Amino acid sequence: MAKVSMELVKQLREMSGAGMMDCKQALEEAEGDLEKAFTVLREKGIAKASKREGRATGQGVVEAYLHNTGDGFPPQVGVLIEVNCETDFVAKGAEFRKLARELALQIAGYEPRWVSRDDVPDTVLVEEKNVYEAKAQQDGKPEQIIPRIVESQVENFLKQSCLLEQPYFREPKHTVEDLIKENISKLQENITVRRFSRFNIRET
Amino acid sequence: MAKVSMELVKQLREMSGAGMMDCKQALEEAEGDLEKAFTVLREKGIAKASKREGRATGQGVVEAYLHNTGDGFPPQVGVLIEVNCETDFVAKGAEFRKLARELALQIAGYEPRWVSRDDVPDTVLVEEKNVYEAKAQQDGKPEQIIPRIVESQVENFLKQSCLLEQPYFREPKHTVEDLIKENISKLQENITVRRFSRFNIRET
Repeated sequence: MAKVSMELVKQLREMSGAGMMDCKQALEEAEGDLEKAFTVLREKGIAKASKREGRATGQGVVEAYLHNTGDGFPPQVGVLIEVNCETDFVAKGAEFRKLARELALQIAGYEPRWVSRDDVPDTVLVEEKNVYEAKAQQDGKPEQIIPRIVESQVENFLKQSCLLEQPYFREPKHTVEDLIKENISKLQENITVRRFSRFNIRET
Repeated sequence: MAKVSMELVKQLREMSGAGMMDCKQALEEAEGDLEKAFTVLREKGIAKASKREGRATGQGVVEAYLHNTGDGFPPQVGVLIEVNCETDFVAKGAEFRKLARELALQIAGYEPRWVSRDDVPDTVLVEEKNVYEAKAQQDGKPEQIIPRIVESQVENFLKQSCLLEQPYFREPKHTVEDLIKENISKLQENITVRRFSRFNIRET
């Protein structure tokens, strides 16, 4: 097993917010590779986060973001978001508010329509399916593969339209859900996005 | 007819944003009483505003307001609002954005649920009516006056719940609609509130 320097442990602690022993262990497991150790922690973090999910979240913050296009116009796009946690201690912390701000930026840029796929109305799903099906038929796709085409297009639609499933704009390899789970792990509390609104003047 | 000083005309112009001749005439009509002259202008303004209502409003601003309670908590109440006007010229002006901010403050403090009574769903109205009716019967009110009691309570409900009908928080004698009409008159463009969201952590 690789000898792990205290300097590396310190760096990993700063990156992850995890405890010293967790960081040391992760670095040993990753043979001193900082990136790899961070992934190890993230995976463990997510495992930890899962245990915290489902716990009541009665505290939180309301955050807003107005997007300035900078051509003399006032903001033409704005976002309002409510993010919940378990205790006022976490709600009052800078980290938690930073997360809310990050999510507001994500919504401004990536235009999700719902928080999670559970929030998508059935009527919308049915309509999307009908459109994809009609398109596949019009394109002359073989009847037997159409259900698979439609299924994959619905999947794409959900991944684009649901905040939690979108790629996180600063680390597109990870989803917004990963970002939230990291914060659940770091702040040791369940965190939920209760709701958001996104207004755009250009929308009809 | 009272002689009107230029100083008074200037004051009224600053108060109302109206032209010099309009202000002079209003002051003459009000016999030099500034408040009264302002009302005269407001009435004329509203008359002017009516002509502008219904014109297409494709420009605008998205404004946000976060309410800080100041006890170490991050914002627990937030408002997002979209206000529309006719041209980018007005949209880019400070006056218009000031109006949007004022409306956001109003929504934060007075908790409207809809923009106007046209937006209240029928199901909500029916439910309110049923509650008031049941209450009046329980209180032993005479059968024949119950419809009038219910009607007046529904009217109160609408005045409290619809942004445009609420008293404007800085001038409770006037409604929010009056404030918007004043701005229509001042900015000489139709102005509409397209939508708003109000999030409160404490809401269940």
